[in-house]
Amino acid sequence: MATLRVALCQLDLTVGALEENVGRVAAAYARAEAAGADVALFPELAISGYPPEDLLLKPGFVADQQEALDRLARTVDGHCVAVVGWVEGHRHRGADPHDPEDGPWNAAAVIHRGEVVTSYRKQALPNYAVFDEPRYFDPGPAGQPLVEIAGVRAAVTVCEDVWLDAGPVARACALGAEVVLNINASPFHVGKQHVREAVLRRRVAECGVPVAYLNLVSGQDDLVFDGGSVVLAADGSLLARLPRFEEAEVVVDVPVVPAAGGGARDAVVVSGPAGDRAPAPLPVVEPSPEGPAEVWAALCLGVRDYARKNGFSEVTLGLSGGVDSALVAAIAADALGPDAVHVVLMPSRYSSDHSVTDALALAEHLGVDARTIPIEPAHQALLDMLAPSFGDLPSDLTEENLQSRIRGVLLMALSNKFGWLVLTTGNKSETAVGYSTLYGDTAGGLAVIKDVPKLLVYELCRWRNARDGVPVIPESILTKLPSAELREDQHDQQSLPPYEVLDPLIEAYVDGDATSEELLAAGHDPDLVARVVRLVDVAEYKRRQSPPGIRISNKAFGRDRRLPITNGYRPRPGGGT
Amino acid sequence: MATLRVALCQLDLTVGALEENVGRVAAAYARAEAAGADVALFPELAISGYPPEDLLLKPGFVADQQEALDRLARTVDGHCVAVVGWVEGHRHRGADPHDPEDGPWNAAAVIHRGEVVTSYRKQALPNYAVFDEPRYFDPGPAGQPLVEIAGVRAAVTVCEDVWLDAGPVARACALGAEVVLNINASPFHVGKQHVREAVLRRRVAECGVPVAYLNLVSGQDDLVFDGGSVVLAADGSLLARLPRFEEAEVVVDVPVVPAAGGGARDAVVVSGPAGDRAPAPLPVVEPSPEGPAEVWAALCLGVRDYARKNGFSEVTLGLSGGVDSALVAAIAADALGPDAVHVVLMPSRYSSDHSVTDALALAEHLGVDARTIPIEPAHQALLDMLAPSFGDLPSDLTEENLQSRIRGVLLMALSNKFGWLVLTTGNKSETAVGYSTLYGDTAGGLAVIKDVPKLLVYELCRWRNARDGVPVIPESILTKLPSAELREDQHDQQSLPPYEVLDPLIEAYVDGDATSEELLAAGHDPDLVARVVRLVDVAEYKRRQSPPGIRISNKAFGRDRRLPITNGYRPRPGGGT
Repeated sequence: MATLRVALCQLDLTVGALEENVGRVAAAYARAEAAGADVALFPELAISGYPPEDLLLKPGFVADQQEALDRLARTVDGHCVAVVGWVEGHRHRGADPHDPEDGPWNAAAVIHRGEVVTSYRKQALPNYAVFDEPRYFDPGPAGQPLVEIAGVRAAVTVCEDVWLDAGPVARACALGAEVVLNINASPFHVGKQHVREAVLRRRVAECGVPVAYLNLVSGQDDLVFDGGSVVLAADGSLLARLPRFEEAEVVVDVPVVPAAGGGARDAVVVSGPAGDRAPAPLPVVEPSPEGPAEVWAALCLGVRDYARKNGFSEVTLGLSGGVDSALVAAIAADALGPDAVHVVLMPSRYSSDHSVTDALALAEHLGVDARTIPIEPAHQALLDMLAPSFGDLPSDLTEENLQSRIRGVLLMALSNKFGWLVLTTGNKSETAVGYSTLYGDTAGGLAVIKDVPKLLVYELCRWRNARDGVPVIPESILTKLPSAELREDQHDQQSLPPYEVLDPLIEAYVDGDATSEELLAAGHDPDLVARVVRLVDVAEYKRRQSPPGIRISNKAFGRDRRLPITNGYRPRPGGGT
Repeated sequence: MATLRVALCQLDLTVGALEENVGRVAAAYARAEAAGADVALFPELAISGYPPEDLLLKPGFVADQQEALDRLARTVDGHCVAVVGWVEGHRHRGADPHDPEDGPWNAAAVIHRGEVVTSYRKQALPNYAVFDEPRYFDPGPAGQPLVEIAGVRAAVTVCEDVWLDAGPVARACALGAEVVLNINASPFHVGKQHVREAVLRRRVAECGVPVAYLNLVSGQDDLVFDGGSVVLAADGSLLARLPRFEEAEVVVDVPVVPAAGGGARDAVVVSGPAGDRAPAPLPVVEPSPEGPAEVWAALCLGVRDYARKNGFSEVTLGLSGGVDSALVAAIAADALGPDAVHVVLMPSRYSSDHSVTDALALAEHLGVDARTIPIEPAHQALLDMLAPSFGDLPSDLTEENLQSRIRGVLLMALSNKFGWLVLTTGNKSETAVGYSTLYGDTAGGLAVIKDVPKLLVYELCRWRNARDGVPVIPESILTKLPSAELREDQHDQQSLPPYEVLDPLIEAYVDGDATSEELLAAGHDPDLVARVVRLVDVAEYKRRQSPPGIRISNKAFGRDRRLPITNGYRPRPGGGT
């Protein structure tokens, strides 16, 4: 049986960093060539990084990116063919957005001996969830030719192409493809690897040929690309799986059965057969983390890459003694190392003793720098300054927000003075219902657990405590009643239903796009539905001004869920509420 | 010559407010029927409001919206036909985003005597600038039938359809259309009415039939829809223009020449000829404001609708004595009335006497409530609290930001206590280069002049002073050097180039999507280009957390310009900088 030796180059690339990306691709290509590979796969839009968003609307950026690919091509000088994602075709100044023939295209350059021999144009452009590809690209036509690499006829495809039944892959296989090479920038959500591998098995079943699937690994603003590149044999078995959430390069000998009809049908001949060589080492099928371990790895990659790619080596956050900030501190210490983490305790007149002792214990367990700045002086000063305006109006949320905003001011001052990135600590449940203070606890550069519901916050903490057998997060943090401690004897559940009730409701309304009527039909309590729906809707203005958070769900706040702030949609009077 | 009596119902509708929108459409329909109209035109997506964004991903919302249209249809009970924008077709739970036949469609319901007789599906779905229609809608097919209204064969079309040469309108006219009825939600930018009327003249020249163009008038988050509905006769002359930036209802007798071939070709017959009636009054061609007057009207509508539709009757802002906050105060007073405006002076140890006196004079001229809260007590308290961390490190931006953030905290406290909407006062030049303090002067609900460059800020102030012959904005505010007054003897131009230099550079880089290389080729100073490009890029994280601002340009910050925060795109080493 013939084999095609495929190098899977699962790299962490950076949006916009053309020179750096080209350098990393060239270095990985050289290693693939040294390992005797016939073809090396690189991620979708490897040169520009993914997603480049409106950088693609700059004609000069697209041109620079093409020059960068040309420089890369000159380094591709061996037997091995490189398949590299790039932006093909020129964006013209004043281009007519209505002209479907004008490009550019999201494409895979097939490079050999210094030349872009051919380029495949992605046919299926996703336009849902976090994706906006038709804003930038024209779709490639059906019926693009196969490419012959080392005597094997391959269907080169890009990302979404492989997700469609009876789609681009099936059409390519009908032309006689003997292997499918699919390059991706496929973002993470919980359980994504299962979905992904199931789709690939369906493709193999449909076409009867092996599939090599190469994914990007990267944190990019709110998105995590989780790697998990795989090779499936023609019988659907898993030949190789690369690790998730980290870079990896693996060379796999992929058994290929020559298609009936031989080489008779059209293909662009890119390279000839390999010479004699020893077989590649048997590839490893890396385990794919599940449950809290998967989420933890995603959050660590998201934090690490956001910090690194934006030039931060150290971070700071407020440690309240509660579970959310404890989790974020533990993630930050894992992601960046404890020396890079500076926690700040900012007790107020309402802070309990256990908050301070719990926070200090956590900091000590993690080995991070901790400091304490009581907020009372600024708190009293501001109350006095506002007294002439407020007169004898009763205390309300105003005074609670004041404390939270003083903390935001202190963290930002430390950030400005020392160059630390501020991490915010609000979870998805709070973010959904607006249980937060804008410019207070939402102040910072990255909202680490913005997409993590409160119940999962607890699960992650317990998992982390169990992981090394060392309970770094004090048990008392996990067992006390959640409280913002912004007034005497405050507890979350004076304002909110228990999280066991709230979290499923938020999941149905936010992630599930249900309406009030549908929530009632599903048996949720009418008063609760009315209250939670109203809270979620009204908090849109806060979310619009909060920092990006790492997406781990199928519907995260941000580019995934684009709701108007000005929004008059209400349950109909008499509609059940 | 036959006439078709067209009622142009240029309404201000609200996204999501299904009941309210239906009520307003029904009331306007009744007035059109009373005026003997043959057809009444209502805006694109009149029932849902525009743009409903991801509300459209809720199957229940789409269904509610369709029930609302059904209720509206029952009130359409006279001779007059109603053409109403709606979402046609069901969004199914779990719908396959790849299926082009699944709907929904952005459509125009043609309603008569209680029934939706037919519905036209928009063919051209914009996917650029602020538009994302293909995220939500399938395009309608070519070759949809004409509709016969009062004996006249009409091509009903929606918005973008009318912008295309040899597009949906030309195809409809080839089928024998005698008039084009085009309903819109067309957002404003400076000079848009000229562009719009030029496109319509091109359409009339192409097709030789009259065009009735009906636009929405509305402020919706960052977008303003400016009305300016028009009717063009078959010779291209302007029969009617409705006022811009306000609601209006006008009835126009549109002369129609029967098409060659009579009624032979297919059309859906909707209604019969009108009975005897007196001619409608001659329509007015309202003037279209230009220059500063146009921008002023747009900003007032944006402020008024944002406040009203989000439940605010009063606003507050910090008045520094500088030109930006003076402009915003004057706009707010015009938009909402002076009684609705509360300005706050928050002098620091660095504030000059003239700042306070100028600000107080402005407040008095405008007749708005003013109060003064010196920030020194909180300023000193915070410096003392931070002293143990800062030690003897020199003062820097940290201490400047501190003052701005104290002001943000005070304004938000007043907002929380009294329910006032906080208006921010940063202009486009500052927003571009990040000359602002996140959570400080950027803290608020609406950034009124976020899309107004600094030079235009001055122009608007001078225009407002000249308008009524009363210089409400003290001349000294317009002549002194701009300063943030965050340290001794600070002036903007210690940090920034003169605005005469900066504004054109920002326009080329931001609005024009130029790259560094292109700016250099255009003759801009290399050091300045490098500095400004870097400032604009790095400020992306601030803009991402700043409130929505009213769009007046062809490329505003926000949904119009979607750049990554994490962005490694830099001028090439040796590329000229």
